[in-house]
Order: sequence, then structure tokens, then C-alpha cells
Amino acid sequence: MRYYPDPDRDLDISEVNRVVEAAFAEHGNGRVQMPPKLYVTLPAGDFRTMPAYLPSLGMAGVKIVNVHPDNPSVGLPTVMALTVILDPATGRPTAILNATRLTDMRTGAAGAVAAKYLAPKKDCVLGVIGTGRQAEAQVRATAQVLSLTKVRVWSRDSAHAESFAARLAPFDTESVSLEKACDCDVLVTTTPSRVPIVKDEWIHEGTHINAIGADAPGKEELDPAILHRARVFVDDPAQAFHSGEINVPISRKLYEPWMIAGTLGEVVTGKRKRDHADEITIFDSTGLAIQDLAIASLAIQQATGMELPFL
Amino acid sequence: MRYYPDPDRDLDISEVNRVVEAAFAEHGNGRVQMPPKLYVTLPAGDFRTMPAYLPSLGMAGVKIVNVHPDNPSVGLPTVMALTVILDPATGRPTAILNATRLTDMRTGAAGAVAAKYLAPKKDCVLGVIGTGRQAEAQVRATAQVLSLTKVRVWSRDSAHAESFAARLAPFDTESVSLEKACDCDVLVTTTPSRVPIVKDEWIHEGTHINAIGADAPGKEELDPAILHRARVFVDDPAQAFHSGEINVPISRKLYEPWMIAGTLGEVVTGKRKRDHADEITIFDSTGLAIQDLAIASLAIQQATGMELPFL
Repeated sequence: MRYYPDPDRDLDISEVNRVVEAAFAEHGNGRVQMPPKLYVTLPAGDFRTMPAYLPSLGMAGVKIVNVHPDNPSVGLPTVMALTVILDPATGRPTAILNATRLTDMRTGAAGAVAAKYLAPKKDCVLGVIGTGRQAEAQVRATAQVLSLTKVRVWSRDSAHAESFAARLAPFDTESVSLEKACDCDVLVTTTPSRVPIVKDEWIHEGTHINAIGADAPGKEELDPAILHRARVFVDDPAQAFHSGEINVPISRKLYEPWMIAGTLGEVVTGKRKRDHADEITIFDSTGLAIQDLAIASLAIQQATGMELPFL
Repeated sequence: MRYYPDPDRDLDISEVNRVVEAAFAEHGNGRVQMPPKLYVTLPAGDFRTMPAYLPSLGMAGVKIVNVHPDNPSVGLPTVMALTVILDPATGRPTAILNATRLTDMRTGAAGAVAAKYLAPKKDCVLGVIGTGRQAEAQVRATAQVLSLTKVRVWSRDSAHAESFAARLAPFDTESVSLEKACDCDVLVTTTPSRVPIVKDEWIHEGTHINAIGADAPGKEELDPAILHRARVFVDDPAQAFHSGEINVPISRKLYEPWMIAGTLGEVVTGKRKRDHADEITIFDSTGLAIQDLAIASLAIQQATGMELPFL
């Protein structure tokens, strides 16, 4: 059994996008096993347990990931993760990966895959709501699949937006108002908001939205009216109903499960697609365990681990 | 974050029984969080993912455990396990334990706790069906809480029964027929059987049965007629309905969920009990994640681990 403390160090973003896209294709073809993630609530946060088996890569395993919003006050990341890999043939644990930054990258990759298939065009203005680690991962991953003519970023804290823009300067990034960030071709929302912050009237026809932030019951970022103007694709229906962008509208009867247009796996496999340039599309991301197995597979090939005694 | 390759080495069985009993008491008082374990099927077996939070011990975490019946043919145990421990305050991973033998011990402890409260008397003849690692763990744990006047063991392979009897010689152990093994005060069943092997007519009034072997859909060891003569206690209702001794009878409408008499946690906390010496009682064990957290808590206090870089 090997432990990988730093498995993300040499990963190529386009390679990550590729393996995550392949995992979504397997999902779209019904060739994975992945029960919906389990949530356990802790005093100041929660942790999620995400098992899966991805036969195409010969990978089985579990990601364990917490969300503790107050962690930065004690010098820890809000989100930390470990992935445990098992040999599918024998069930023997073969690898443990520090998956904190892998989680950022594989979530960025899901957004990139959605943007690749659902963006209205290849040259895009990218709007970004939020300036945390996930916002940055989304920009870097999406830049691999689209030509970003401009990146418009908004944060509740304008200093954060300024430093984000400086960090991502190669992409012609500017700090703007929330409304202005929504004036784009592809909008990425990455906040932990529990009230809608993106207003319906700010979203023009043809926009693709990657709704990333909502990943637990009670979280939402978009005015539910936008869902009714849009075709909504999810990563996994059960997870999206429980904890995705659509979870609050569903619980309030403002949206119905049957209204979803399909899964990203169905989009990647050509079973569903954007039908015309003027429609609004939404990808509701909750994060799939198969994304974690896919990036772990890549990382294990490249990273240096340390051997641990097991039996 | 520390890794413990050998955390069971210095564990005292009576201490394990004590912490596992305390965990059942917390469960009986509704003071734990523990979603039912998730099963993922692999080509030659499965793995189970078991998250929980046990506030009384300040322990949160996940056990990951496989079952691969053909593993001995490649020199590996059928069952192997890892437990990942998180700090409940921040969600940070703090420990990873090789939990293969811890799993044996905490399952043995559950049987011992059930026997302590549900055996018809303190001086008991113990019947044991099966001679694997779990059979041995059950005898050693139960010997801490009852005086075993005799141990009667049966295996499909009589050589296995003979060597088991020799290994456990201090307990006056003898290899007997299946029927004779059932002639006892406390019967422990530990096989992976998918057809009932214990006949109704072999079980006399007053017997307590620890039904340990059935831990996945399709497995059963007891003639369902025994369930109707007995009061059945489970570790966790949802897990027992899905994968315990009662799973097959329930799926065949030979038993109904409402018929269970309660949980072991309710027994430990005095809410339920054996009502008279002549009744048959059954403890249907599926294995709880809180048992794994309890034994991990004890192991971490005593074992030597190795520090791993994490952040």
C-alpha cells in the first residue's frame, strides 16, 4: 500500500480534463457503480463519504472529504480530502492519496467538460462568481477547452477579486460587479451561498452556467426562475436532488426532478446536447466519486508515493 | 496524520468489549450519527463503506472493508479493512488504521456484549458454527463475559474443527456434529452460508444465538422458523433489513421488519431485555461503524503509529 502526500504536483490540467471526461462517458453509458455520497454532520461542518467502482480504469475506492467553513480561522483549508484505492480483484487497499488539491482539480475538470460540450461557442467571455480555490481551478481547467477572451470576476470582498484577477492576469481578468460578471457566455458560480445571488434578469439567452457551489442541502446560488428558462444537466440525479443547485428549489416545489434535461454523462456520450445557440444551459455539479477515481488513477501513474506496511 | 499498521497488537479484549458496549449504549440513546453502510459490488466480492460520528469519544471516521471469498487462494485474507479517522472539529484526517484484525475484534466484542445481556445464565455451554477468524474472535470475546463450561464447535471440514478445538483448548473445546453444536446455551454462527444450516428442531428453549455470518444480501444461517420462536435483536434496523440474518426471510415475506424486538443498544441501555430464562433470543449482527470508531479510539491510545505528511 502506498501513500501519496502530494499527488497533484505534476498533473497536467488537460490530462485531468481528459480522464474526468472519460469517467463521465462511462457514467453516461451506465458502466460505473456509484451509490450517492453519504453525509455525516459534525459540530462545525460535515464530511462526505464517496465510494465507487470504475471498471474501465480498474479503479475502486472511496473519497472522504470534509467541509468546515471556519477552518481558515485556525489555518486549515475549508475542504480537505483523502482517497483510498482498493484493488478490485481482491479488495486489498493499494493506495491512499492526499486528495485536497485533487478535489479542486477534478471539480474544475467537470466544469471544463460541461463547458466544452455546452458553451454556446468556442471564444467565450467567462464570468466567475467567487474567488476561492475552486474558482481558480474552474478558470484554469476551462481555459483548456475554450478560448477565454475575457474573465470577469466578482467577490463579496473586492480585494479578493482584485488579487484573483492579478493571479489570473494571463487570462485578461478584471474585477467587476456581480451583474457585470453575469454578462458573459459561460458563468461559473463557486460560492457557499444559501440564498440565490444570481438574478434572473442578469442572465441573457445563450449563457451556459456551471453551478458549482451548491453541494449540500440548503445551498443555492441561482434565482430558481433561471432554472425554468434553462435546460438543466446534472452530474448525478440522486446527488443533485439531495444537494445540488436544484435541491432547494425541489424542496420548495419550485422545481421538479422530472424537469432535468439529463446528465453530463449523457451529454458527453452524445445522447443529450445543447440544441441551439440561444438556449440557456446549466450544469449542476455536486461532484462524483468517479471523478476522484479518475484523477487518482492519473496521479498514481505520475506521483512518488511512500510504501506503507499493510498486511 | 498518523498511520497505524498494527493497531490491534496490544489490545486487551475486555477493554475492547467495554468500549464497544459503550458505543452500543450511545446508539441506544440516539447519540450517534451513522448512515447505513454502502455496498459496492466488485467482480469477485464487494466492499463496504461505513462512516460515522460518535460524539462521546470525539471520533468521526470511515471504515472501508472488503469481502472476497476467493482471496485465500492468492494468499490474502477474505476480509481486509482500513479505518480513516477525522478530527470532528475541523474534518482534518488524523489517523489511518489497518483495521483487518480490529474488525475481527470489534465483531467479537458485539457478540460478547449481546451474550452478556441476553445469555440465559452466566455458566454456559457455547456452540460455535464455523471455525474462521471470526469464530475464534467470538469465543475469546465471549469468554470475558461468560464462564464457558464447554465449547462445541462444528465445521464443514472436520480437520478445521479439530485444529480450532486444539487452538482454543483452554476453553474445553470439542469438535462435534452440527446438531450437537446447537445443543448449547449460547450459539454463535459465523459462516458465509446462503442457505439455512441451523435447523429449527435443534434449538432448544432458552438458547441465545449470536447470528454473525449473514452480513450481505442473500446470506442466511438460521431456519426462518427459529426467528418466529425467538425475540430478535438487531444492531441497526436498516442494516439488518438489508443484509443481516433477517434479510432473506424479509425479502421472502417469511419475516416482517416490525417483528424485531429492538436493538442491542436498547438492550445495553435497559430499554429491552430477555424476559425469562426459557425464551430464545437472537442477536442479528451486521457490524456498525461506531464499533470501528470505538476500537480505533482505544487502539490509537496504545499503538505506535508513523507520522505521514498531509497538508
